[in-house]
Amino acid sequence: MDYVSDDFAPSNILSCNDDSEDHPRNLIPELCRQFYANGWVTGTGGGISIKYNDQIFIAPSGVQKERIQPDDLFVQNLNGEDVIIPKPEKKLSKSQCTPIFMCSFTERNAGAVIHVHSQEVVKLCLLNPENEVKITGLEMIKGIYNEKKGKFYDNDEELIIPIIENSKYEKDLVDTFKIALKKYPSTSAVLVRNHGMYVWGSNWKTAKTQLECYEYLFKIAIFKKIHHV
Amino acid sequence: MDYVSDDFAPSNILSCNDDSEDHPRNLIPELCRQFYANGWVTGTGGGISIKYNDQIFIAPSGVQKERIQPDDLFVQNLNGEDVIIPKPEKKLSKSQCTPIFMCSFTERNAGAVIHVHSQEVVKLCLLNPENEVKITGLEMIKGIYNEKKGKFYDNDEELIIPIIENSKYEKDLVDTFKIALKKYPSTSAVLVRNHGMYVWGSNWKTAKTQLECYEYLFKIAIFKKIHHV
Amino acid sequence: MDYVSDDFAPSNILSCNDDSEDHPRNLIPELCRQFYANGWVTGTGGGISIKYNDQIFIAPSGVQKERIQPDDLFVQNLNGEDVIIPKPEKKLSKSQCTPIFMCSFTERNAGAVIHVHSQEVVKLCLLNPENEVKITGLEMIKGIYNEKKGKFYDNDEELIIPIIENSKYEKDLVDTFKIALKKYPSTSAVLVRNHGMYVWGSNWKTAKTQLECYEYLFKIAIFKKIHHV
Amino acid sequence: MDYVSDDFAPSNILSCNDDSEDHPRNLIPELCRQFYANGWVTGTGGGISIKYNDQIFIAPSGVQKERIQPDDLFVQNLNGEDVIIPKPEKKLSKSQCTPIFMCSFTERNAGAVIHVHSQEVVKLCLLNPENEVKITGLEMIKGIYNEKKGKFYDNDEELIIPIIENSKYEKDLVDTFKIALKKYPSTSAVLVRNHGMYVWGSNWKTAKTQLECYEYLFKIAIFKKIHHV
Repeated sequence: MDYVSDDFAPSNILSCNDDSEDHPRNLIPELCRQFYANGWVTGTGGGISIKYNDQIFIAPSGVQKERIQPDDLFVQNLNGEDVIIPKPEKKLSKSQCTPIFMCSFTERNAGAVIHVHSQEVVKLCLLNPENEVKITGLEMIKGIYNEKKGKFYDNDEELIIPIIENSKYEKDLVDTFKIALKKYPSTSAVLVRNHGMYVWGSNWKTAKTQLECYEYLFKIAIFKKIHHV
Repeated sequence: MDYVSDDFAPSNILSCNDDSEDHPRNLIPELCRQFYANGWVTGTGGGISIKYNDQIFIAPSGVQKERIQPDDLFVQNLNGEDVIIPKPEKKLSKSQCTPIFMCSFTERNAGAVIHVHSQEVVKLCLLNPENEVKITGLEMIKGIYNEKKGKFYDNDEELIIPIIENSKYEKDLVDTFKIALKKYPSTSAVLVRNHGMYVWGSNWKTAKTQLECYEYLFKIAIFKKIHHV
Repeated sequence: MDYVSDDFAPSNILSCNDDSEDHPRNLIPELCRQFYANGWVTGTGGGISIKYNDQIFIAPSGVQKERIQPDDLFVQNLNGEDVIIPKPEKKLSKSQCTPIFMCSFTERNAGAVIHVHSQEVVKLCLLNPENEVKITGLEMIKGIYNEKKGKFYDNDEELIIPIIENSKYEKDLVDTFKIALKKYPSTSAVLVRNHGMYVWGSNWKTAKTQLECYEYLFKIAIFKKIHHV
Repeated sequence: MDYVSDDFAPSNILSCNDDSEDHPRNLIPELCRQFYANGWVTGTGGGISIKYNDQIFIAPSGVQKERIQPDDLFVQNLNGEDVIIPKPEKKLSKSQCTPIFMCSFTERNAGAVIHVHSQEVVKLCLLNPENEVKITGLEMIKGIYNEKKGKFYDNDEELIIPIIENSKYEKDLVDTFKIALKKYPSTSAVLVRNHGMYVWGSNWKTAKTQLECYEYLFKIAIFKKIHHV
């Protein structure tokens, strides 16, 4: 295990070439700023992890997500062993969502996993005491990937997303998360009641665009529930 | 047909002179970032096409709209034949809205067409089972162009916008879209239930400002329906 | 009367010294971008005018407000005579709100007047069939200037804002606007039903901050009406 | 007492080294811009104070919060004596919240205090005639610090936040504020009915992230009250 090298200090990242825009050390801080602006990761909430070659890049825990720097990230391998960690003087700890992130990588072969403290998810679950949400008849369903069929949904198919109950500690969600993955082999997201959502995809682009589609669909679903239409 | 030349690689665009701000290769990425910030083209949804001289510039399909680059665009002529396409290594495909875009160019002599996955449109159509929306008595109606009369509406005129039903594939909307154009010769927009809106104008400015006026009017229309005022 | 000199072409403005940040040619474009981001001047709606020495600077009519350039402005004297106008090739016309702007300058000795197509105003007037809005008991009332008493309101005073009915043309609002000014000598704003709001102050800062206070107060007033609290 | 030196004129701040990003002269203007964008300090409302070594940095009163400059701040010591004040030609006065800020520094050993004119707080208090707000069962409670226990809340604990009544002048809130601090030793925030909120933490980061958590929690609490879920 190594500490992050000076190559990934902010000053170097800023001068890196164009191709590296897609490197997780650049992408994760940028995406977190975008998610913060959408209200999805305020108050240190939420998290993100991206697989890059055989390395898993993970955002730190309990920090302002819109201020993450490239050298704040943790890197571990697929066995969960640390490869590179931030310099000790930064006093950072790895995201508490790490066990769930790893679960998505190993059980679903995800390329990226995002955790958001979405108000829409909390509101929708408040209106929906069942352990799943069903959505149908909206064009935006086409943006969601059916993991079982290996293709995006048609807009005349029914989307079913599991809801699991919240736990006292993030790590205690792993068991019910795994059960939801098995019971809902098509889903690319799991909602956590009173808490938020985990969403993943084969790469960061499909994870992010699905997150946006889910948020859109949930806003409409809340509107329908409230106004009985 | 040609592949996009290196003249339109991002690095060159950034150094181009002021006049070219209005070139579709600059405008389309800029407008898409603005529409994304408004929540109109999230999750790869939506699209835009601008006519420039005799060339039709079209955004790519299924990509993050806020990250489109100048050299990502497709260019075809008015007969629908490709003139310039993005480099093959970009693996981009032309917007699935292309048949509807072309329909607006040929049937209405549009200069620009915008497609948005607007939540306001979806909500308004949910509250409105009819196949048209009627709006009256609001100042903002003045911002909508009456295509039949060849002038902007007065604020004491009634605005009627057609709603068509959604289809499984975007291309299958063409027939009902054409019928709506004929039945509503005044309209500069067609709503697609559970999906979004197409709006066009004689140039990109009137297409964009009408989009903004429609969104404003729909927000008020939803408020009126919900609160019975 | 002169056409705008090259001194106010965008390239020169950008290199001007710090003090000129408060010059209307810089302020008006900047404030319009801010108002646009707040949804107050979308779809070419709204307008602004600032008095500077004895010159009245006025935004152009029917243009995208977030894209106004320093050399797009009209300048007239207090008698309404043109002093400097944009170059003819820009094909710009003066704001249709000009008669109302001038009315605020002459009747109330305003230093700046802002017109917004605020959705909050439209919604509040829909909920309020009376010809005035009364607001009381909120801290933010302290941000509103009582023009009659020549001081800001206390938070235990009642704020009364007149509503006038909309007209077909902006210029036809002048008569009822003047009547409202006389009937409500304390007010620094007039609401126009189904349309928006005019708000003014002794300088651009008090006009803008009062606009923000009114918007805040109207959002709370709508909430109270809707939820009966 | 000194006037602010030229070392803190904007031009010097811009060229300062990285470490000084956390200096209150940079942080306060930056945070105020962020709070303004969230709608928390519009119309000159709100305020912020940060303790740095033994100096208390305080934002000016009655100004546009998104336009504060580094050399606009007041500095006093823990006894409330002025140490550095802005140049007289700026005509600035110290935040009217200063007595409450000082109260948080002395009674709770805060490192930073934020005052926001939050619409969520006003709405929640309108729905809640009691003199306290109770929130339970939401993950985001984990972001709130229990000042009595000296640790962050668990998500299965009940959060109780005191509401005090508004007064005519900000300084007259001090007595009831102090009573609330004593009656609610766990709280890190006090709500002021029809007005807004004071929130503090051991440093600016915990003050800001708790502000975000409270706002999130209040939005959900309002949703639950309105929709009876």
